[in-house]
Amino acid sequence: MSLLEGNLLVAQSGGPTAVINASVAGVIQEAGKHTQIGEIYAGRNGILGILNEDLFDLNEEMAKSIEALKHTPAAALGTCRYKINFKTDPEQAAKDMDRLFEVFQAHNIRFFFYAGGNDSQDTSNKIHEEAVKRNYEMRVIGVPKTIDNDLPHTDHCPGFGSVIKYNAASVMEVGADVASMATDDGACCIIEVMGRSAGWIAAGTVLAKRAQDDPPHIILLPEIPFDEDAFLERVQKTVSETKYCIVVVGEGLKNAAGEEIAADKDRLDAFGHPVLSGAADRLAEIVQGRINLKTRTVKFGYAQRAAAHYASAIDAQEAVACGKAAVKAAISGKSGYMVKIVRVKSDPYEWSTGLQPLSDIANVEHFIPRDWIEEDGFLPNQKFIDYARPLIEGTNEVPSEGGLPKFVTLVKTAVEKKLAAR
Amino acid sequence: MSLLEGNLLVAQSGGPTAVINASVAGVIQEAGKHTQIGEIYAGRNGILGILNEDLFDLNEEMAKSIEALKHTPAAALGTCRYKINFKTDPEQAAKDMDRLFEVFQAHNIRFFFYAGGNDSQDTSNKIHEEAVKRNYEMRVIGVPKTIDNDLPHTDHCPGFGSVIKYNAASVMEVGADVASMATDDGACCIIEVMGRSAGWIAAGTVLAKRAQDDPPHIILLPEIPFDEDAFLERVQKTVSETKYCIVVVGEGLKNAAGEEIAADKDRLDAFGHPVLSGAADRLAEIVQGRINLKTRTVKFGYAQRAAAHYASAIDAQEAVACGKAAVKAAISGKSGYMVKIVRVKSDPYEWSTGLQPLSDIANVEHFIPRDWIEEDGFLPNQKFIDYARPLIEGTNEVPSEGGLPKFVTLVKTAVEKKLAAR
Repeated sequence: MSLLEGNLLVAQSGGPTAVINASVAGVIQEAGKHTQIGEIYAGRNGILGILNEDLFDLNEEMAKSIEALKHTPAAALGTCRYKINFKTDPEQAAKDMDRLFEVFQAHNIRFFFYAGGNDSQDTSNKIHEEAVKRNYEMRVIGVPKTIDNDLPHTDHCPGFGSVIKYNAASVMEVGADVASMATDDGACCIIEVMGRSAGWIAAGTVLAKRAQDDPPHIILLPEIPFDEDAFLERVQKTVSETKYCIVVVGEGLKNAAGEEIAADKDRLDAFGHPVLSGAADRLAEIVQGRINLKTRTVKFGYAQRAAAHYASAIDAQEAVACGKAAVKAAISGKSGYMVKIVRVKSDPYEWSTGLQPLSDIANVEHFIPRDWIEEDGFLPNQKFIDYARPLIEGTNEVPSEGGLPKFVTLVKTAVEKKLAAR
Repeated sequence: MSLLEGNLLVAQSGGPTAVINASVAGVIQEAGKHTQIGEIYAGRNGILGILNEDLFDLNEEMAKSIEALKHTPAAALGTCRYKINFKTDPEQAAKDMDRLFEVFQAHNIRFFFYAGGNDSQDTSNKIHEEAVKRNYEMRVIGVPKTIDNDLPHTDHCPGFGSVIKYNAASVMEVGADVASMATDDGACCIIEVMGRSAGWIAAGTVLAKRAQDDPPHIILLPEIPFDEDAFLERVQKTVSETKYCIVVVGEGLKNAAGEEIAADKDRLDAFGHPVLSGAADRLAEIVQGRINLKTRTVKFGYAQRAAAHYASAIDAQEAVACGKAAVKAAISGKSGYMVKIVRVKSDPYEWSTGLQPLSDIANVEHFIPRDWIEEDGFLPNQKFIDYARPLIEGTNEVPSEGGLPKFVTLVKTAVEKKLAAR
């Protein structure tokens, strides 16, 4: 194997997390150690920026800015949801692929790293296969990222630990608040968290529970079909025992027919669109309407995946390590792999990184095993707790300015274009 | 003045905050220094517990538990929304007052401290006046508490700094998230925060803004009647300039007729109740419906007032100081006052505590001065920023256990009842 020399391109894709920038910092800092890597470029807004030859030069950033990526949330390089889809639009996909390789060639890109979830790993895999087919020597390594924790083969995904740490702390705090208010008939609070098809994020809030009566009292997972009567019975039982009930619901909760409970097409707003109530608001209507229990809702929305002010230290460390491992793998001659996190043991927690062929990852969704959930479906069990507990250890340090977090914004010095516009 | 000796009773009232327990810690720790104070009792769930003679003994708690109150959110003594209302039900109010003094007398309560907002200060005032009338020697001091920051005469209220610190950090984080996603037509995110009539909490998120284009781009205050067309114009202008728009809305936003925009009685759910959409969801419908801009919502709900994991250090210090100042005032012979925070100067921030007659406080609501808001009504101006900035300095330290905050739950050793049931 001759030594591959050339430039590096890194990009981010899909929904941001609190630690996806930490992975990029890992890529950049590791790349700096290898002389066979020349320029270190970023694609602005993922694959979309690469298609537009919209690259910027990460070597022009200050070293301290790169270090600050380790505590900066969202996607510092910009991100997108663009998908190269050979199935739905093969013509456009073929054009896109041609264009990508024009850009790679024009800038002598020989190391390509894409941080993202299922779709992005699929994109990486296609780029890897295309490089082989075109006989264009390039190392393509996927970096795992998703708060949803639904990538297969990796023990868990960077981003997941931080979102469940923030959500679990918030459940403790909301629980303490609701519990402390005297009521005649009890009170209910329903907290909606992300997770449209896999319930990992909702399940993670079980870590708030240190004693039997602690919140959350009920966790509704998209994997378990919603049984309204059983749910209301459980709410009433909880309120009769503890005077209050904290429910966590994954936004994608579905009924037995597989329809999301939040998507009620019968209720239209003044513009004729379905009313924008989420799963929590819908459940609150059910609880108040059927058992007349005072109910309030919380919806963290984007805040939960961007909550760098309370991110998991271990999550950030793993995210950096995944970025570094990607570069090491590429330098060692590997291509067509995703970095994965391998659990050595849970208690005390030990982990390392590994590699999995991208073709094993692409478009496979990983759900919570049924035997990690209690039989009645209302709470994850000890197996889940043992799995999730190590992932929230420590709080990632964020410098402060005027009492608020100090994040970094990259300068983004543009790389001169060499091609005609797309 | 003869030296008053007797027992102390402290209670909490109204909605909890991240630092109301810090005030109670201040009361208890200061009280321990004064030998004229005998027992240190708490009323469970505020005035309601006192009416039920449901007291517990704070001297039975461990000293480290009292110290831990300084970082524990919600109301550790329990709280209530019960109001002694001489106007709407004079008969019940008179009965309640008789009962309160039976309890005070039975337990030789001579020092009474009530931590709460407007209603609670009104209750404290009535109890003070009643004590004078009955010739029952007792020192009554109100301790200020409200995230709403709507108490008059005090520079600000303990609880306010912490809620705006958490909300402002969250706005920064959500803003970074939304800004980093490539879109064709821009994106909007509407963040709903508490504040039904005063907009202090919503206004406080302006602290997230370090540069002109930073979020929040628009803050909708309940004090400023909602002008839908002007709002949509501002959203479009923001998106054309920065590609995204972060809007913060106080839950009680009202139209020109004074009706809350969230309370739309025309839209009923399956049970015939008004659809439970909040101000943010309502605004999202308007933005999506009228200018077809992709819009998401966030609603922190109770989480914002309970967010001890990111509470303001200065807020917690002031809360403790208010509790201590209340005891010192009572010991010095004062009764019928509320402790207030006095700003000595803003930069660098210096403050002290003072006293204000309860009769000046009760049921007066303090709004944002109109000249602290920009003329177009869409953002607070520099006067507000200079006022609010010192209140979020520092992050109150919270010990950690298993990666999550470690809060304290009091043992609550019951005080033996001496009276027949109410």
